[in-house]
Parts: sequence; structure tokens; C-alpha cells
Amino acid sequence: MDDSTICKKALDIINADAELLLQLIKVQMEHLTLPHCPLYEEVLDTHIFGLSREINFAVRLGLIEEEVGKEIINSIERKLFILFEGSTKK
Amino acid sequence: MDDSTICKKALDIINADAELLLQLIKVQMEHLTLPHCPLYEEVLDTHIFGLSREINFAVRLGLIEEEVGKEIINSIERKLFILFEGSTKK
Repeated sequence: MDDSTICKKALDIINADAELLLQLIKVQMEHLTLPHCPLYEEVLDTHIFGLSREINFAVRLGLIEEEVGKEIINSIERKLFILFEGSTKK
Repeated sequence: MDDSTICKKALDIINADAELLLQLIKVQMEHLTLPHCPLYEEVLDTHIFGLSREINFAVRLGLIEEEVGKEIINSIERKLFILFEGSTKK
């Protein structure tokens, strides 16, 4: 694999994991009556932490830019906030 | 970077993180009077989970072999067990 191939692959994996995380959250939100349950928030935190470790590793390997990694995490946190907002307004 | 350089770099980062984790655990063990405190075990679990996510990412990227990754996690768990054993015998 050349440099650009592996960089693209790293970003693809990260984006796929981010998407999976958001889907998981969305599905659970729709089926939960208590989205603010502490255990649930802990599970979310763990997932976000896992993804951030993955991103951090890719940054240290020089496969993605630090700014790109931060933007992925920020974007997830924004979407999470919107999902939480939506679920509390039901 | 060529393939072998990036593979080596990935393994170096993972090994450095694994070493850091073990050092952290060792230092804390020496200063804790309650190594079996649930909060402490949770912190350890989180660290191990973070490292396993890093390893899993490297495996999916084709940078390290799955078996090598498993061996790193197993080795940490064995060392942890020994540390716990030692701390409870004090």
C-alpha cells in the first residue's frame, strides 16, 4: 500500500466507526424511555472514548491530520447533542 | 513511508502505550492501599479498552497481525494479574 492508500483506508475506517456509533445511538434513542439514564451515558462515553483513541492513534501514525480528527469528534458530539435535545422534547 | 516503516511505527506506538499503561498501574499499585476499589478497576478497564481499540484499528489497517495484537493484550492481562496478586499479598 502506498501512503495515500493507507491514509484513505484509515479515514474510511474511522468514518465507518463514527457512522456506526451514531446509528447505534439513534436506534437506542428511539427505543429508550430514559435517554438520560447514567448507565446509558456511560456507554456513550465509552464508545466516544474508543473512537477518539482510534483517531489519536491515526494522528500519531501520521495517517490523518490532527484537525481532521478533532473535527470528527466534534461533529459526533454535535450530533449527539441534537439527538439528546430531540429525545427530551418528545 | 513504506509499508514496513509504517508497520514498525504502529507496533512501536502500541508497545509504548502498553508499557505506559503497565508503569501507570505499577506506580498506582505501590501507592494505593485499596487496589481492589471498584473505581480503580474501572480506570484500568478503560485503559485496556483504549489500547485494545488502538490494536484493533492497526489490525484492520493491516499494519499488525491479529495474533500479535491478541498477544499484547494477553501479556498485559497476565502482568496485571501478577501485580494484583502481589499487591494483595502485601
